[in-house]
Amino acid sequence: MRSDVRSLRIVVVNTVIPPEGEQDEVAWMQAERARALRIGLLEAGYNIIAVFPADMHLPDRVAQLQPDMIIIDAESDSRDVLEHVVVATRDAPRPIVLFTEDHATSSMEAAMAAGVSAYVVAGLQSERIKPVLDVALARFNAEQKLRTELSDTKLKLAERKTIERAKGLLMERHRISEDDAYTKLRRMAMDKNLKLSELAQRILDVADLLG
Amino acid sequence: MRSDVRSLRIVVVNTVIPPEGEQDEVAWMQAERARALRIGLLEAGYNIIAVFPADMHLPDRVAQLQPDMIIIDAESDSRDVLEHVVVATRDAPRPIVLFTEDHATSSMEAAMAAGVSAYVVAGLQSERIKPVLDVALARFNAEQKLRTELSDTKLKLAERKTIERAKGLLMERHRISEDDAYTKLRRMAMDKNLKLSELAQRILDVADLLG
Repeated sequence: MRSDVRSLRIVVVNTVIPPEGEQDEVAWMQAERARALRIGLLEAGYNIIAVFPADMHLPDRVAQLQPDMIIIDAESDSRDVLEHVVVATRDAPRPIVLFTEDHATSSMEAAMAAGVSAYVVAGLQSERIKPVLDVALARFNAEQKLRTELSDTKLKLAERKTIERAKGLLMERHRISEDDAYTKLRRMAMDKNLKLSELAQRILDVADLLG
Repeated sequence: MRSDVRSLRIVVVNTVIPPEGEQDEVAWMQAERARALRIGLLEAGYNIIAVFPADMHLPDRVAQLQPDMIIIDAESDSRDVLEHVVVATRDAPRPIVLFTEDHATSSMEAAMAAGVSAYVVAGLQSERIKPVLDVALARFNAEQKLRTELSDTKLKLAERKTIERAKGLLMERHRISEDDAYTKLRRMAMDKNLKLSELAQRILDVADLLG
């Protein structure tokens, strides 16, 4: 992550469409708030590389631009938008900051579960935008570390199961000790230039095939 | 977690001591901010059950009161305070909200790594306190879920290793197949009313002892 947050390449996902007439006061207020947020970002020196609506094209656009951060400026019900952004960042997680008027606890919990780094309810003075984005970045980095540790541990557990099953198979077929089976596995993995778990998976696949 | 955040029992950890004279303007401003924060919390209807300084007695006091949330009102350098609070919540994690003037990225990252649920830089209008605490709670619940999943997975991995080692030992000593060794283990665990991993650990301990 770059050290100066102002060099971040930001994509704003905007769900607020300014209304045509003057009849809908809530819509006007939302549009006004969306404009104020973008002005605040620009005045704070941020680099907004694109503004997109939240639609089915979002994943492709995010993949093309590879932004450093995604800011969602959401209407009152943000769950649909969030869905699109989560799909768009599934393969390459990014810090997501959600500005919303939605106070519902269930919406917050859904956003946290979806991996949102900052959920900012109600208006924000523009001088507080930078601290909020900084915290979101730090939060994102800490969570990524936790998630990486979790997926590493899950992978280790799965690999362990595979290796132990292959070892057990060798012990049984050759009537050899655990140590001998392990040595055999390691030697073969080195010869074939494979990870131990990859070799173990091959052994299990073939044993399955041969019955 | 209780549904209405206003019924939360909150402990405020306060590091800001109002200065004696009028000479130190920064200290006066900090004291003023600390007072404003507490007024904001009280006006919003929160239940502040205690206000403590961040010292060596903090862990005992937190253990006695079992608050639902800890709010730290920190001076510019919050790392020492954070250290005390982290120790105080090690055994029973709680949502921690940190109000500070400290913009340093390293401080934010340290706070996130220590498990702070919300890191709020610079003044906050009192009408935004409730949303911030709500988000902190949702965040805390999501992170607890992730951390629980991680520790469960780590435990599974460790248990798996123990069970596999015990199984390997039985296969070797009795020259039996993997399935037979597993069946033997399961039957013995049921007889002794032990978890499979507990029995496996006993087998390994005794095998170690007998050589």
